[in-house]
Amino acid sequence: MVVILKREHTQQQLEQAVRAMEAGGVKVMISKGAETTILGAEGNAEGIDQEKVALLPGVERVMRVTEPYKKANRKYHPDDTAIDLGNGILVGGQRLAVIAGPCSVESEAQIVAVAQAVKGAGAAALRGGAFKPRTSPYSFQGLECQGLELLKEAREATGLPIVTEIMGTEYIDLFEACVDVIQVGARNMQNFDLLKKLGRHTTKPILLKRGLSNTIEEWLMSAEYIMAGGNEKVILCERGIRTFETYTRNTLDLSAVLAVKRLSHLPVVVDPSHACGKAWMVERMSLAAAAAGADGLIVEVHNDPPHALCDGAQSITPEQFGTLMDKLGALGACIGRTV
Amino acid sequence: MVVILKREHTQQQLEQAVRAMEAGGVKVMISKGAETTILGAEGNAEGIDQEKVALLPGVERVMRVTEPYKKANRKYHPDDTAIDLGNGILVGGQRLAVIAGPCSVESEAQIVAVAQAVKGAGAAALRGGAFKPRTSPYSFQGLECQGLELLKEAREATGLPIVTEIMGTEYIDLFEACVDVIQVGARNMQNFDLLKKLGRHTTKPILLKRGLSNTIEEWLMSAEYIMAGGNEKVILCERGIRTFETYTRNTLDLSAVLAVKRLSHLPVVVDPSHACGKAWMVERMSLAAAAAGADGLIVEVHNDPPHALCDGAQSITPEQFGTLMDKLGALGACIGRTV
Amino acid sequence: MVVILKREHTQQQLEQAVRAMEAGGVKVMISKGAETTILGAEGNAEGIDQEKVALLPGVERVMRVTEPYKKANRKYHPDDTAIDLGNGILVGGQRLAVIAGPCSVESEAQIVAVAQAVKGAGAAALRGGAFKPRTSPYSFQGLECQGLELLKEAREATGLPIVTEIMGTEYIDLFEACVDVIQVGARNMQNFDLLKKLGRHTTKPILLKRGLSNTIEEWLMSAEYIMAGGNEKVILCERGIRTFETYTRNTLDLSAVLAVKRLSHLPVVVDPSHACGKAWMVERMSLAAAAAGADGLIVEVHNDPPHALCDGAQSITPEQFGTLMDKLGALGACIGRTV
Amino acid sequence: MVVILKREHTQQQLEQAVRAMEAGGVKVMISKGAETTILGAEGNAEGIDQEKVALLPGVERVMRVTEPYKKANRKYHPDDTAIDLGNGILVGGQRLAVIAGPCSVESEAQIVAVAQAVKGAGAAALRGGAFKPRTSPYSFQGLECQGLELLKEAREATGLPIVTEIMGTEYIDLFEACVDVIQVGARNMQNFDLLKKLGRHTTKPILLKRGLSNTIEEWLMSAEYIMAGGNEKVILCERGIRTFETYTRNTLDLSAVLAVKRLSHLPVVVDPSHACGKAWMVERMSLAAAAAGADGLIVEVHNDPPHALCDGAQSITPEQFGTLMDKLGALGACIGRTV
Repeated sequence: MVVILKREHTQQQLEQAVRAMEAGGVKVMISKGAETTILGAEGNAEGIDQEKVALLPGVERVMRVTEPYKKANRKYHPDDTAIDLGNGILVGGQRLAVIAGPCSVESEAQIVAVAQAVKGAGAAALRGGAFKPRTSPYSFQGLECQGLELLKEAREATGLPIVTEIMGTEYIDLFEACVDVIQVGARNMQNFDLLKKLGRHTTKPILLKRGLSNTIEEWLMSAEYIMAGGNEKVILCERGIRTFETYTRNTLDLSAVLAVKRLSHLPVVVDPSHACGKAWMVERMSLAAAAAGADGLIVEVHNDPPHALCDGAQSITPEQFGTLMDKLGALGACIGRTV
Repeated sequence: MVVILKREHTQQQLEQAVRAMEAGGVKVMISKGAETTILGAEGNAEGIDQEKVALLPGVERVMRVTEPYKKANRKYHPDDTAIDLGNGILVGGQRLAVIAGPCSVESEAQIVAVAQAVKGAGAAALRGGAFKPRTSPYSFQGLECQGLELLKEAREATGLPIVTEIMGTEYIDLFEACVDVIQVGARNMQNFDLLKKLGRHTTKPILLKRGLSNTIEEWLMSAEYIMAGGNEKVILCERGIRTFETYTRNTLDLSAVLAVKRLSHLPVVVDPSHACGKAWMVERMSLAAAAAGADGLIVEVHNDPPHALCDGAQSITPEQFGTLMDKLGALGACIGRTV
Repeated sequence: MVVILKREHTQQQLEQAVRAMEAGGVKVMISKGAETTILGAEGNAEGIDQEKVALLPGVERVMRVTEPYKKANRKYHPDDTAIDLGNGILVGGQRLAVIAGPCSVESEAQIVAVAQAVKGAGAAALRGGAFKPRTSPYSFQGLECQGLELLKEAREATGLPIVTEIMGTEYIDLFEACVDVIQVGARNMQNFDLLKKLGRHTTKPILLKRGLSNTIEEWLMSAEYIMAGGNEKVILCERGIRTFETYTRNTLDLSAVLAVKRLSHLPVVVDPSHACGKAWMVERMSLAAAAAGADGLIVEVHNDPPHALCDGAQSITPEQFGTLMDKLGALGACIGRTV
Repeated sequence: MVVILKREHTQQQLEQAVRAMEAGGVKVMISKGAETTILGAEGNAEGIDQEKVALLPGVERVMRVTEPYKKANRKYHPDDTAIDLGNGILVGGQRLAVIAGPCSVESEAQIVAVAQAVKGAGAAALRGGAFKPRTSPYSFQGLECQGLELLKEAREATGLPIVTEIMGTEYIDLFEACVDVIQVGARNMQNFDLLKKLGRHTTKPILLKRGLSNTIEEWLMSAEYIMAGGNEKVILCERGIRTFETYTRNTLDLSAVLAVKRLSHLPVVVDPSHACGKAWMVERMSLAAAAAGADGLIVEVHNDPPHALCDGAQSITPEQFGTLMDKLGALGACIGRTV
């Protein structure tokens, strides 16, 4: 941490600032110039209450030097972390892991059929919504617990691990018992109460979606919440951010994939379906995500998009998914990844 | 709802679209022109699955005509709704209701002292955080349940109703038992699970903060979630939105106050402290909010800002609060409001 | 400027960084710790090429300490700057200067009638567009030079100075000759070629609108461009920024008024008409702007809004303007300003 | 265009709305229901002043059905437009056209060396800034006219057409005389005066960068400005948009490439250098852009990035550019494009 003092600070104010920093357990380096006086924290500045130091009378400004996240930080964990989806397939390794399935689970026939189709095309896991976060209380809210039962049947039938979204802390035990990867939706990325308890009370990997308007640092801090609780199995998911553009549902931020891979050791997957909201964009954006260096994809596949109970507009068919997997395989060959 | 058909649609596609609309329980008006064919829904189009209609082969686009919220909609409730804070003081009436208190409850001495000071200056209720949503898991998270106890003591000592934030559904019974107004923070504005249960399992007024990047319609849909559950006592709170500007913590959107008052019958209060993040801006922005037509304010007041455990930079002192109340009183005289 | 070296920097890299800073004409303070080494620039760091220093091998990051604007900076000009609109009325003084008029000049009858009406209600200057920046090349582009002639006639008839927008450098001599205040529109805020030449080749005050997505610092840097050229008469105009909200045309950022008044000595006016895009919001937002501390307002007034050639939706009538001026007068009494 | 009347409209208001629409030269279809009355414009609604119709007393809202751009619209020009860079190489054809060069021209040695290097690696054209748009008036503004001379020498030496940015209308004749492709920077995307004159007074292709916060529709409307003037040779350039993320300079919006290719027939190139602001991201984002379907790239290449006078942080070396071209060639084989 670096503290710049006001030009007209007093000696007493300087000492007060130094004491406040030392109280945080650091050694303070003082550079006193004719115009500028700089105080540098020597050592881990995390113990310093920056807000308080910034409020001291002689202080002009406080500048943080290090990232606020530790467990998610590549600086302290140089090697990539790879996470097992539950069937031995790793996210974060050499294989591009593709998770596929419908926006919401609708019936046994539907989910099993889609699971078999995506399994056949090479999917690594099955996604499907049982509890749906909908903007309107009057929209279909998902089959809820019954949906989880149907997902289990689909896993039964295909061996694919299941990835589904959790909506609140009261479902943690249920999810811990029957889900393979627990998804935290974009709107819950800063539901700190949920993050804390997922860190403490689950052993399952958490697929943490980036909030619609959150920065990469905030996203990694949410991962830190989960990891600080003890569960270090966090898979980050870029799913598009809110911008002024309305043609697409959101704007897929592929540079965030590169940024996160550099700042953190955690694996990153990309969700082109929610990002674009248009089925015809999914193939191209999936290829772009792979070329950018994503560790995996999460794609919406529905047996009958026009009649989907939710997000049909962004769902591709099993046939289109098969074509996508073929093209990802060919692209993978150029960038050193298998599918 | 209005549906525009593709120029080259077939008669069969037209009939398919009409059937899909009629299935939603509306009468369909057909305007067939040489180039454009328009289908208009006669009656309540809420029953129509717009996503599905939009996916039909002959459909160019679907346009919604009515707002998706009902209970929060002024169209169906022309009169202003005024909500009792618990001590007979109404938010949404002629009085400008000012809620004041520290960002977080720190000790009995602190919260009682601040409560007495703001009571003396004319505050309508006491705010104070017991459970704090912090970006970092390593920051002070609030005194939690003990904080609620201290708030009760402050209420005891002053008669001021207490307004405090809830972080998850597991605390609903506790809050229902001891809190007067339950605050939902900006980051939980679309925590739909929490909204649903607050609607069903509480009778206390809900102070619903606008999400950092949410539109007015999304905000009203979140109010709708609570109201649809049965609890219609929702107080909206504008607390600044995220913009590219970094000088202020967020950007206070005062035109949203006017917009919401026109679109909805619910009362609206403004939080200048979180919006600006700078204590020296609070007085001016409070006056501006009152001039814009806010029904109340929620202001951070701390007995010793430089030593606050949280958000000291945006807290004003009891003395400054007294001055603010005096100025609000004078301004109120120009705009027909009392404080 | 503060430079943080990489933990594993070499002595040679340290010396290279110091040399690069000294080349910018500053003395360098070195704080060498076990883990962190900080280089502090003693003196004016403007001469240092920060981009280059940041690219040096041993450098972790470079942090700027001072604002990049000088002439617009209050630090070097503590007193408020007040600018004469051309008729002796100052913007930036005790009087709240209200500039009013139609979005675009349409005819002699229209502009003269509106000018007389707003003059009668106490306007300080007349605004009116001759050259219109329109999103579509097929929309009405303004009466252009003929519009300037009509504005001159309105000035003739009322004595009100005229404020109108310039679209390119080729019009500078023409505007210098016949306009009292030259407006630079939001979309041209970073038209650096125009800013430079306005600084060098005009003596008239420049009303500089904030860009739709620009930060306060970028806005002040655009003012700096004009001032660096020699014309220090810059009036800043907050006219709403682009946000995700679509109910209003833009989002009026009143906290920016406070911020700019603190960071700069230049006067600031607010344009509620373009910010909101809704005539019914203008009165309330004008009062809010005055309460926030704006030095003036620029309001669209049209004799017949429903038939305006441009922006009728946000124009108020002369009658409504009269009412607004009365209310501003009453509010002014509370905040120590006259109208 | 579709007009929805207020529920309680009068017959006279209906007729007034119909007349206002007919005045725009369309036939009006009336769908009168018990609750909703819809007026549909039959034919080209461009002649209707939507603002005025929206202000009529009986009108609830006006909804546009067709895009406001014509010449840039794929609906009226189904085939892709390919534009010759000046040396027979087309942008918008099967070849992925890569434009490369330094941010700014610094010296003859520098620009000629870079030109020869990128030519050798397969670049289609040379980019280089002579007039630089800088946020600060105190930053290097480019070599200006001398820079153009040096670019001509580099063209001389390599045969590569030159792409450089124009800052104002006064330079149009100069650019028309010596530049091959005229670039309009992001900050000038809505400098309508410049767009108009580029449309009327140049025959050279215009590389139109997307504004930092502009929508795709606004971007296409700016292209329409140029095309409406007579110059239909517009190359669109996605260069990243402003978002809340600060780790990257801007956020590259690759879904915009797909969107624009569908909405318009114009070619689209991507600038990963300005979008990311980090040299190490350029290769990956270039591959992603190609995978997404871009018609070309514009990449910053500098012989000595650490000593570049501008944007060294985002410039790659000629060696890195060679590697990038090889990888693009390999990727091209998967997606049916040559480099």
